[in-house]
This record gives sequence, structure tokens and C-alpha cells, in this order.
Amino acid sequence: MQDIESRLQGSFARQGLMTTMGATLRLVGPGLVEILVTPSPAISQQHGFVHGGAVSALADSAAGYAALSLVPAGRGVLTTEFKINFLAPAIGDRLVARARVVKGGQTLTLAQAEVFAVNGTQERLVALMTATMMSVEDRDGITD
Amino acid sequence: MQDIESRLQGSFARQGLMTTMGATLRLVGPGLVEILVTPSPAISQQHGFVHGGAVSALADSAAGYAALSLVPAGRGVLTTEFKINFLAPAIGDRLVARARVVKGGQTLTLAQAEVFAVNGTQERLVALMTATMMSVEDRDGITD
Amino acid sequence: MQDIESRLQGSFARQGLMTTMGATLRLVGPGLVEILVTPSPAISQQHGFVHGGAVSALADSAAGYAALSLVPAGRGVLTTEFKINFLAPAIGDRLVARARVVKGGQTLTLAQAEVFAVNGTQERLVALMTATMMSVEDRDGITD
Amino acid sequence: MQDIESRLQGSFARQGLMTTMGATLRLVGPGLVEILVTPSPAISQQHGFVHGGAVSALADSAAGYAALSLVPAGRGVLTTEFKINFLAPAIGDRLVARARVVKGGQTLTLAQAEVFAVNGTQERLVALMTATMMSVEDRDGITD
Repeated sequence: MQDIESRLQGSFARQGLMTTMGATLRLVGPGLVEILVTPSPAISQQHGFVHGGAVSALADSAAGYAALSLVPAGRGVLTTEFKINFLAPAIGDRLVARARVVKGGQTLTLAQAEVFAVNGTQERLVALMTATMMSVEDRDGITD
Repeated sequence: MQDIESRLQGSFARQGLMTTMGATLRLVGPGLVEILVTPSPAISQQHGFVHGGAVSALADSAAGYAALSLVPAGRGVLTTEFKINFLAPAIGDRLVARARVVKGGQTLTLAQAEVFAVNGTQERLVALMTATMMSVEDRDGITD
Repeated sequence: MQDIESRLQGSFARQGLMTTMGATLRLVGPGLVEILVTPSPAISQQHGFVHGGAVSALADSAAGYAALSLVPAGRGVLTTEFKINFLAPAIGDRLVARARVVKGGQTLTLAQAEVFAVNGTQERLVALMTATMMSVEDRDGITD
Repeated sequence: MQDIESRLQGSFARQGLMTTMGATLRLVGPGLVEILVTPSPAISQQHGFVHGGAVSALADSAAGYAALSLVPAGRGVLTTEFKINFLAPAIGDRLVARARVVKGGQTLTLAQAEVFAVNGTQERLVALMTATMMSVEDRDGITD
């Protein structure tokens, strides 16, 4: 698990967008990842909520790293598609995206991510994503 | 058209994420919107491409403003869901998201957005999104 | 529950496609529905598996009735969109679609459905759907 | 084109669900396919419209054969996922699903399908689908 965690953290640190958003990643278990972010005007939409694109970025990264945690080292994953439903405005002290692998495969991995708005001890589901990740090797130098 | 354009630009200027990304919006016609951005490390994923979440944010905003351009002033739109397929790495001199309304409605609007990577005079389709927008009024003070 | 069950069964009996497919519905609980079908050549695709469209029909109906079970009598629900991922060929003694409401709302309900292939005592996940249902009243005479 | 057409028609004839629905296929051009069906109670939902699952089946088959028309003979395609938005009730003299390949690839093909309700000389868009097809060879004897 520690090898996997450091591999994921190394890759995550190279995701410029996650750095820009101030997001942090936590490997919860094999195929299970959490990403946290604190809402700020820098990632808002016009009504002051976190932008749906930012919510999607969190969920997509979480789903991708959940998939990557199950893929042999040296291979990378790319998102081929995702679908996201928005259920409530993304406002709160924190947003947390929780992803899990639904089904891994040789080529394709299906993952789901839920994004919650956290206020004090309360959590509210704000978005639900289903994503397909493709495992790639030696393509355009893509690893991890 | 000019009233609509200034309404959209006013709303777009309040999207903190678009400012963070350095994106610009152009109203092309009724129900037709373009958003441009220059790729940079600040919005990248781990292999140096523009992050799928950033690509999604562009497409989502473009789709949203395409929808808003057809909605009476004083009402706003919220994304209820979208689906995006990624077709090629998002790299290039510029990314442009082009959105059009497929079908407007009293409550729901369906829009599509294509995101192209522009290199010199060449354009390559990197992502295709279908999004549902919901028109809202007097809800949490949401307008434009 | 019995009122809800008979309302759902009455509506389900009017779904000609479900009759054509030989499908049966079971209300498991509030917001929880199962639909069963026995695979046959009449609903196959070209390789002998159950057609993805038939799998989608099961999941869509299950999601719709899960939503309807929570909607006041006299109102109906219509699917506005769904997304489905196919994970394994749909073959087996039986297919069962299990749907649950993720979030109900005044206008929109989000539901998920999983479709399993059942062989003896073994179940295998063959498809995962996320669907948005819209509650309608007095529109084109739509109830239940 | 004639070889491709007969290959597609041969495969389509083995889709039991399409036979059950009374659907017919037409190859319009490379990567372009139409499927027609006449609405009937056998494929209806509870309000008398064509069931969303039946609409999806038409669109899915059309998208699949659009993809297959561009894939070398001896290989088959399987749907890995699709998303469909429903825009209007599926009622009319005929339904026609028109599919085109958006982008073909070694492994994955992205296709779109529009389903129209035809009444006399009028057409109305009732559904829009985006689908990913996977090209497979020598897997479970899948060809065409």
C-alpha cells in the first residue's frame, strides 16, 4: 500500500490543476481514493458555488487514482469518458470526492465517484460521477 | 444580441474558475458560444496535457452560456448533468470549446459542446460533451 | 406499500415492451425496485447475448418505477436521460435489474440501476445505469 | 460498400431484438447507418409512447453498425457505454435512428445517434445518444 500511495502522490503532485485548486489526495485502500478541497472564489461559478467543472475535476481525479491504484506500476490511466449528475449546490467548508473502482479490467476500468459538501459534521451529496478509465503503456510516455 | 452579450460577459466575469484558467468567452450567435483558453501547467494533468476536469469546465461553461443566451433575463441556468467523451490529448496553442443548444425548453435545455485543440491553423477534436441545463428563477438568488 | 405496489404493477402491465420481453416487476421497498427477465433469442443481439437495448430497457424501467414509488399518486415520471456502462456480456439463466433512488426532488429524481446476470446462485454485474427522471402532472394525460 | 452492406445486414438479421421490434437497417455511407421502426403497442411504455429502452435499442444498434461499417471484416464491436437524452415523446408514423461515427480508433470508436419521430413529412428529434464501441477480435467468437 505504501508503494502505491507514494506512486499516486507523486503523480498527483504533477497534476497542475489539483495544485491550482489546492486539492489533497488520500489513498483509502486498494481502488479507494479521496480528494479534498476547500471552496474559494478561485474555483467558483457565477453564483458563488464551486464550479461544476471544478467538482468534475475532483471527481475525475479521484476516479482516475482509484483506477491507477489497481494498475501495475509503469502503466498509466487516461479518462475516456465520464458522466456526472449535479444534485445540490457545491458549497461548504470542504468538498470531498470519494471514488471506488466498480470493475477493473485489462484495458478498461469503471469507477464511480461521489462528491460531498462537508459543513461541520454534516455531509451532503452534491454530485455523482461514473467514469471509464483506459490503461495505457508506452504511449506518449504515459506512466502513472 | 448586444444586451445578451453583455449579460453573458457579466456573468462569465463572475466565474472565478474561468478567471483562474484565463478563459475568454465569445457569443457567436443565439444559442452559440465559444470559450478559449491557452494551455498552461496551472491547468494540467500529470502527463502535461490539459486536465480532463479543465476541459470539462470549458465545455460546461460554454454549454451553460449557450443555454443562458436563450433564457429570459433575470433567470439563471444550472447544469443538472453532463457527459463527456475524451478523444485525444488536450494539447496545443489554444483550446476552444464550441457549444450550441440542441433543444431549449421551459425547464430543461439540452446543449452540446465540442472542444478542439488548435495548433496553428489545424484543429483537432479532443472532447465531446452533452449537457442538460435547468432554468431557475428566484432560487437562492440565482440570476444570469 | 400495498397501494404503491398495485399502482406500480398497474403501470408496469401497460408497458407493452416489458410484456414483450416477459419481464416481471417487484417492489422491494420505497424507492427500491427489481425487474426480472429470462434471456431468449427474442431479445438478443447478434452474438446471442441479451441486446444492450434490452438491458437498458430493464434498467430504465426499474429506475423509473423506483422513482415513481416515491412520487405522489396521480403524477407520472418520464426519463429525461440515462447513461449506462456495459461490463460483461448479458448471458445467464436470468437477468435482474435492481434500482434505487439516489436523490428525489420536486421536479427531478436521480436513480441508479445495476443489472446482474444470474447463473445458479452466482450473480455477475453486467451493466450500471444512472438515470434522471422528471415528475410530470397533467401533461399529455401522464399519470403513473 | 456492397460487401459492407451485406455484412451489416447479415449481422443485423441475427439481432433477435431488432426482429422482434420489426426494425430495418440501411447503410447510408461509410460510418453512416439508419434504422427504422414502426411504433406499436409491443414496444410501448405505459403512456403509449415508444419505450425509452426501445428508442435506446434503435439508437444503440444504429451506432454499433455505424462503427462496424468502418471496422475490418472478422472483427466485431461491442457497446461499452452510451448516454441518451430524451427530448420529446417517441410517437409518430415511424421512428428513424440516424447514427454517424464521430471518431474511429484502433480500440474504441465514438458514435452519435439521433432518433427522430416522423409524421408525414415532418421530423421531430426525440432522442440524442453518444456511444462508445469497442472493437474486439477472437473473443468469445465475436465477429461482425
